[in-house]
Amino acid sequence: MSENVITGSREVAATAIDPGWSCPLPLRDSPTIVMGHGAGGALSAELVEHLFLAGYGEANGGDGGDAAVLPLPGCRVAFSTDSYVVKPTFFPGGNVGDLAVNGTVNDVAMSGARPQFLSTAFIIEEGTSMEDLGRVARTMGEAALRAGVRLVTGDTKVVDSGHGDGIYVNTAGIGIVDDGVDVRPSRASVGDKVLVSGPLGLHGVAVMSSRHGVEFGTAVRSDTAPLNGLVTEMLATGADIHVLRDPTRGGLAASINEIARAAQVGIRIDERSLPVPDSVVNACGLLGLDPMLVANEGKLIAIVPADDADRVLEAMRRHELGAEARVIGECVAEHPGTMVARTGLGATRVVDLPLGEQLPRIC
Amino acid sequence: MSENVITGSREVAATAIDPGWSCPLPLRDSPTIVMGHGAGGALSAELVEHLFLAGYGEANGGDGGDAAVLPLPGCRVAFSTDSYVVKPTFFPGGNVGDLAVNGTVNDVAMSGARPQFLSTAFIIEEGTSMEDLGRVARTMGEAALRAGVRLVTGDTKVVDSGHGDGIYVNTAGIGIVDDGVDVRPSRASVGDKVLVSGPLGLHGVAVMSSRHGVEFGTAVRSDTAPLNGLVTEMLATGADIHVLRDPTRGGLAASINEIARAAQVGIRIDERSLPVPDSVVNACGLLGLDPMLVANEGKLIAIVPADDADRVLEAMRRHELGAEARVIGECVAEHPGTMVARTGLGATRVVDLPLGEQLPRIC
Repeated sequence: MSENVITGSREVAATAIDPGWSCPLPLRDSPTIVMGHGAGGALSAELVEHLFLAGYGEANGGDGGDAAVLPLPGCRVAFSTDSYVVKPTFFPGGNVGDLAVNGTVNDVAMSGARPQFLSTAFIIEEGTSMEDLGRVARTMGEAALRAGVRLVTGDTKVVDSGHGDGIYVNTAGIGIVDDGVDVRPSRASVGDKVLVSGPLGLHGVAVMSSRHGVEFGTAVRSDTAPLNGLVTEMLATGADIHVLRDPTRGGLAASINEIARAAQVGIRIDERSLPVPDSVVNACGLLGLDPMLVANEGKLIAIVPADDADRVLEAMRRHELGAEARVIGECVAEHPGTMVARTGLGATRVVDLPLGEQLPRIC
Repeated sequence: MSENVITGSREVAATAIDPGWSCPLPLRDSPTIVMGHGAGGALSAELVEHLFLAGYGEANGGDGGDAAVLPLPGCRVAFSTDSYVVKPTFFPGGNVGDLAVNGTVNDVAMSGARPQFLSTAFIIEEGTSMEDLGRVARTMGEAALRAGVRLVTGDTKVVDSGHGDGIYVNTAGIGIVDDGVDVRPSRASVGDKVLVSGPLGLHGVAVMSSRHGVEFGTAVRSDTAPLNGLVTEMLATGADIHVLRDPTRGGLAASINEIARAAQVGIRIDERSLPVPDSVVNACGLLGLDPMLVANEGKLIAIVPADDADRVLEAMRRHELGAEARVIGECVAEHPGTMVARTGLGATRVVDLPLGEQLPRIC
């Protein structure tokens, strides 16, 4: 869909305040931030590459993954951060608090790391009810206990009424990467199988239904959950797991696209094998959404050598968060960097990185 | 001043949604968040103790310092986070970007750690100018290079126009705590000297003057700066530095009060020895502020054994950020947990932890 919007590279006019600044953003001809810049799709990727990383210059030390794997004396750690601005704060199946704990636990775990410590930082709007804030804090404590991490440092800022929007939560997390573990998007290889841990689209639909006050058949609840226990079981098989990724903002399509580009392999997904619950299918039909683009907060994609797929799948199915795990595709030599889906009719279509927002403020 | 506001403990009414929740906050009889909860004073401390830590329960693993010192296989790390919501985004001497880098570098360094890695997470209001955001990112890169840290992982969220407020930045930081280093507020001991690294009040006055469009005599610029290089020089003396603290929100008074309480010593400051520039004195007079309560972003307090004070002071003065370092007080056996100031007239007065906001959204 992006070709309708691409208008070519453009340099934003420099001003007298800072005459040196220019920011070529090829995808959109906008001198200002739009919602899509925060949606985890192509606009987000462009902002990171052309504005943030360009601005950081030599100080940039990231490797492009959800978490950075860092050398310390005596061990490697995975380090990740996310802010959570989900609207509404409370939704079926969770709230911004467990979302913030689970989300960062999962980002750390997707490096194959064992999450240990989280920071928690709040930006709260003046006038927010103490009771709501207390519920969020308690939910965070419960989520941290479930995930086996400790909340060790924090910060609180309050912004004047009319700014912020209730409760924003940032978490950063540290996990230990054990010796021999090497899990990163660029390791996806031709012949690898693509696995998913369970039903897709629940978080996005739960938040949207809550926002619009509609229910789609049976009530859909967010799948927010900590995936580190599942990852531990998968690694314990001894399989050489190449890639782990939690398909949050931008859904399955964004994650698979990012992996395909990082590893320069083609990835082919079989749409008929995707575990999408009827309630999600119905909701997406009504809202005009593609289930492959809808956010998940308790699911992972694993890319493993074909020979290892069965034992990893068995380990996943023994865990409560992987009971419905299955193979959904494979890595191929054709069309490197591109995700394709085999449709229900047997045709093949390209699935591109979404441009911008399908569901703003979903996490 | 707090006695006028203390209204006794109160339990916020439970609701049908979450009947178990109650939050006794002794200082204020408010069922909602007020600006003072984010100001780093007594209200902030109360919110942390009674709401956040109570909510986190067994998942709380913090030690109450600005940074948590954590055991990893092979080393100890200091871990800290802060969100920056300063208004305006750009002010004399800096912007939210270098503030966010320096602030977290400093919080990590105040554990005696060597800061290594920072995460950067943005919450940006739709419609924010790309140019402003680019300037902030570039400033962050420059600040990180100056401090010798790398920006390794990040996140971007966009909130709809009318929410958020321009650019909010969260940073979290990781530093290495070398063997033998043990710097924490509770180590302040009777007889220790209290040192400060330079002139006080510049950041707060710079932001306030920028916000109100007034200048106080010569223009006052924020002192935002990374203090880790200064700390390295101080530790290199071999002195047994007991406490380091950067007096940000709540100023000198908040930091000294927190140290006095953590260590259960009295701390006596000589007001006549405080390095407060005339421009800050004038601005505080006009605005009705106490210079001891105004935020600094590039100063540190050190508490060291009396025998070590001279060599630490010499090391500080050799560093550009400590050129005006001096002794401002001492730890005493009297009035444990309390800060007192000897005034210009020779009298002694209690300086309490500020209740709430003197300068909202100063950092």
